Amino acid sequence: MIKANDPTLHSWIQISPDSDFPIQNLPFGIFQTAEKDARMGVAIGSYVLDLCVLGQYNLFELIDIDPTIFHRPYLNDFIALGQPTWRAVRNRVSELLRTDNDEISGNSDLMHQCLIRMTEAEMLLPVKVGNYTDFYSSLEHATNVGQMFRDPEQPLLPNWRHIPIGYHGRASSIVVSGTDVYRPTGQTMGPEQQTPIFQPTNQLDFELEMAFIAGKDTPLGYPVPADAADEHIFGLVLLNDWSARDVQQWEYVPLGPFLSKSFATSISPWVVTLDALEPFRVKGPEQLPRPLPYLEFTGHRNYDIQLEVLLQPAESPEVTICQTNFRNMYWNMSQQLAHQTSNGCNLQVGDLYGSGTISGSEPGTFGSLLEITRQGKTPLTLPDGSQRSFLHDNDSVIVRGYAEKGGIRIGFGEVRGKVLPAI
Amino acid sequence: MIKANDPTLHSWIQISPDSDFPIQNLPFGIFQTAEKDARMGVAIGSYVLDLCVLGQYNLFELIDIDPTIFHRPYLNDFIALGQPTWRAVRNRVSELLRTDNDEISGNSDLMHQCLIRMTEAEMLLPVKVGNYTDFYSSLEHATNVGQMFRDPEQPLLPNWRHIPIGYHGRASSIVVSGTDVYRPTGQTMGPEQQTPIFQPTNQLDFELEMAFIAGKDTPLGYPVPADAADEHIFGLVLLNDWSARDVQQWEYVPLGPFLSKSFATSISPWVVTLDALEPFRVKGPEQLPRPLPYLEFTGHRNYDIQLEVLLQPAESPEVTICQTNFRNMYWNMSQQLAHQTSNGCNLQVGDLYGSGTISGSEPGTFGSLLEITRQGKTPLTLPDGSQRSFLHDNDSVIVRGYAEKGGIRIGFGEVRGKVLPAI
Repeated sequence: MIKANDPTLHSWIQISPDSDFPIQNLPFGIFQTAEKDARMGVAIGSYVLDLCVLGQYNLFELIDIDPTIFHRPYLNDFIALGQPTWRAVRNRVSELLRTDNDEISGNSDLMHQCLIRMTEAEMLLPVKVGNYTDFYSSLEHATNVGQMFRDPEQPLLPNWRHIPIGYHGRASSIVVSGTDVYRPTGQTMGPEQQTPIFQPTNQLDFELEMAFIAGKDTPLGYPVPADAADEHIFGLVLLNDWSARDVQQWEYVPLGPFLSKSFATSISPWVVTLDALEPFRVKGPEQLPRPLPYLEFTGHRNYDIQLEVLLQPAESPEVTICQTNFRNMYWNMSQQLAHQTSNGCNLQVGDLYGSGTISGSEPGTFGSLLEITRQGKTPLTLPDGSQRSFLHDNDSVIVRGYAEKGGIRIGFGEVRGKVLPAI
Repeated sequence: MIKANDPTLHSWIQISPDSDFPIQNLPFGIFQTAEKDARMGVAIGSYVLDLCVLGQYNLFELIDIDPTIFHRPYLNDFIALGQPTWRAVRNRVSELLRTDNDEISGNSDLMHQCLIRMTEAEMLLPVKVGNYTDFYSSLEHATNVGQMFRDPEQPLLPNWRHIPIGYHGRASSIVVSGTDVYRPTGQTMGPEQQTPIFQPTNQLDFELEMAFIAGKDTPLGYPVPADAADEHIFGLVLLNDWSARDVQQWEYVPLGPFLSKSFATSISPWVVTLDALEPFRVKGPEQLPRPLPYLEFTGHRNYDIQLEVLLQPAESPEVTICQTNFRNMYWNMSQQLAHQTSNGCNLQVGDLYGSGTISGSEPGTFGSLLEITRQGKTPLTLPDGSQRSFLHDNDSVIVRGYAEKGGIRIGFGEVRGKVLPAI
């Protein structure tokens, strides 16, 4: 097997050192261009590599794969082929892109057909999401929210340190980065109101999250142990869980958030594999009290991924408003998956599992405006002099993330979305 | 247009007067047999009519439809053709089955191929569910639950009479009637416990519900007005929302029910169209305070459908433990759909929208064991002398429902499920 993360690996494609997509990354996505319909690609430097074209040139003939699988509008059929196949395809792509390989680089017709500038490719939603769960796994975020909405002295509910709390989200409104988001209208009941009103939300927020995509169907009734979780994960994306806080506060008892979230959830288009992230595994925070046995795991299950959120008002430059890290999540993805399936709930290829908002404990590390502005009490002042308690129309929110070590940067690109006025 | 609900309509197929499936009903479903793979059928008396075979015999040639649409494992592609097409197909089937039509009855080869005894057909999940919402729309159920779990004096939360409260459920674990359900394992924290334990649930329950299936995709950002809801509904099924009450009570704050529900949700296989139910529209209960304008509707939006739940311990006969009616639901389906989309959330063909548990106010009309046994405090004594606070292993739960008027009975068949011991 090719060591896909080997720092001595280099490609014949020139790649900027600050690119998210060196030869060690090779994330999968779905793209289209003015000439090409939806198909699978791999990100490399500032290019998209068209796997469909590589298949037509028989460059995967040593792998047991039907090359038409690359010509689909979603990754699901490819993912369903299983981990050995994803690995074989990614390793083969790595081989084709290496300095010492001329199967593409020595064929100018092929090279012209299979390499598309990212600026000319439109990235599409990478998977058809059948089931979307959103967890609530950052201790700092749960604490911050509990202090504001419930008890400042006892912000964590009694179940939080025992259960990777999560809820089902809406799959239909998951959109890819670049999709504009209409400000939602909804019911709110402010403290000064006698009856609820129905109006465009005044408290539109983002939530910085990561999410993993399920790589395997499982049968109903059979739990996945935490230690077996990795083989059920295809890869990770960035996620922005848009939220209408005023709607949420009025609707969420007793069955949880609903319309305050279901108007849109944005994800980044490139799915970074667990293989690419392997060098960035780290130990997570200590869990006390010790979780029940079905949530126990061995090894390091957290990942050192630097994350940032930028806000861009219309006609203004981007401003960084949050910098944090995925490594501090209290509940890790293996525990989330073990919990999700502990009652026998089945997984389906393409399922999306959000981490919950990722916050640190210091100002500057909070993953939502709710936390940054203390529910609007301490508005953010932007360089253009304007203030933000929550998002304004025409604001864009950009989330970026990457892991870096030993000169290798494995990036996620970005998830971006602009707020449009309510319809 | 054929008056599909005309009481003077009769079929050349002999149909028992107590059948759920007279010529006025004609619900759609997906079935297979030992010889036939998954395909679309219509229920008529004690037979399944194979639409695939009718298509092969060109019996739909006057309708603009590709007959291969009937040869699919789910109804979704057929539903996506739109309401005029469902109507045209159902009306044509009605015509073919009428006493005065011999296109099938006069062709013994065809008749032999297209009519399958229900006992020889295996019914499959009728739709691929992309999004599943479960509402909480029975005033009596919300009151009963609020009295037990929260405040006996103020059982309804302040939002309940303003919002058709709902939450997202798990789509992957929706199963068709006849599928056995493993008793789920989960975390519970009884009042006598110091720390949670992980064990098979001791409080396995059913919930009697009806559900509607979305018939139309809508674009993200655009609400569906309550008065336009009917054209977005393909039809209705019975639903059993299996619930683990001890798990639910520990996990549900602050994000709602999750693993206490996601192990299985059972639905009946025949989708009864709104056209078939048209004669059974009734006025719903008065809504006070008056709902916000986006929830207002004209006409009658409730349906008079009699419902019952039966419990069948292993080796024992069925016992009726609940009889109630769908007509008393506080929030109707049009309001549920208007609420679901009021924030711009998009609908997708095949989405499932559960009503929430349907309970009346009198003993004998409660749609869950939680309510029937007051959370186990007043166990049910069965004819065999055994008692039930919650479900035992090998108990079967059967939900049946039908509408009846002027000698016409439009039935749903049943949704049945048996509890298997925890794995």
